[in-house]
Amino acid sequence: MTFDLDQAMEILERTPRVLRAMLAGLTDGWVHGNYGENTFSPFDVVGHLLTGEMTDWIPRVKLILEHGPAKPFAKYDRYAQFEDSPNKSLAQLLDEFERARAANVAALRELRITPPQLAKRGRHPALGEVTLENLLATWAAHDLNHVAQIAKAMATQYEEAVGPWREYLGILRSPVTPMDADGAARRAAAQAAQSRPQR
Amino acid sequence: MTFDLDQAMEILERTPRVLRAMLAGLTDGWVHGNYGENTFSPFDVVGHLLTGEMTDWIPRVKLILEHGPAKPFAKYDRYAQFEDSPNKSLAQLLDEFERARAANVAALRELRITPPQLAKRGRHPALGEVTLENLLATWAAHDLNHVAQIAKAMATQYEEAVGPWREYLGILRSPVTPMDADGAARRAAAQAAQSRPQR
Repeated sequence: MTFDLDQAMEILERTPRVLRAMLAGLTDGWVHGNYGENTFSPFDVVGHLLTGEMTDWIPRVKLILEHGPAKPFAKYDRYAQFEDSPNKSLAQLLDEFERARAANVAALRELRITPPQLAKRGRHPALGEVTLENLLATWAAHDLNHVAQIAKAMATQYEEAVGPWREYLGILRSPVTPMDADGAARRAAAQAAQSRPQR
Repeated sequence: MTFDLDQAMEILERTPRVLRAMLAGLTDGWVHGNYGENTFSPFDVVGHLLTGEMTDWIPRVKLILEHGPAKPFAKYDRYAQFEDSPNKSLAQLLDEFERARAANVAALRELRITPPQLAKRGRHPALGEVTLENLLATWAAHDLNHVAQIAKAMATQYEEAVGPWREYLGILRSPVTPMDADGAARRAAAQAAQSRPQR
């Protein structure tokens, strides 16, 4: 599919509703269970998506439009949610994400990005030069990546219960992406401070 | 997580809303794009989930309760949607799935399954003996498997557009599960009859 900003917006606009449909009102086992050692639970994922809205996507869009590749993006802190959200409820996180995303979608519209601007370049601290199109497509694909990750964390709670059907369920065999040592330590510290039960 | 029927119902009840939040109102590129040769599009997935509601899950529950392992389950036709849904719109499929699932959740409640009954056995045509608990856990995990599959099909539309970010997006590198030859042939026949554009 050729990139089209209006089509990307279709995804960005609906993700808060998708997360709410998947998670609001679930019992704790579904919300806080993860899919292997040092992996995100659905609760962690929503906190991570909220961090991105606050610190990452729109600031990077503006950096590309205003400075181009001269000024590299700030590093995306993938684990900030462990310090930011441990005392929040899932319902709070879902509300905050919905508000933050709505504000960012409005900000994106206000920029009135034209097709030629999609080719403008910025500098990622690790990946090097990227285009505005790359960034906006990644914003949408990153949402979908984490929707799939939430589904995997939830399905994993039934890894034993499904019995012989396990071999038919690709979601139970897809690759596991654990956090790095920094993430694991910060999660452990947040949990110790909170004594939230870990799976 | 230990299997608990009420917790499984939390998933079964919300899947129609999750599919609607993910898909209702999307433009065709998102709805009909798949993630590789002979793979399901989101449209195909919703049709497949609808088939399961009509022919598979509740009949298998009843077979276990009424006949035990003496009478094997009918085979689940994973490709029936190619004959059943080509002339339907996505909106129709979402409505039909919502109604069928609501009826099946009500039927499941009416059975008033007790914890000891969860150990009752049935016979899967390929997997052999399975328990009622295995079946009910698989029903929920199968929903989540296909939610993740929809997210993967959608994210794959931006596989090129994300550029260098591809390496950070696990969803673009997770295993692809193509249809078998029967499925591919039946999809091709349905598409020829319909001339729906294929990705």
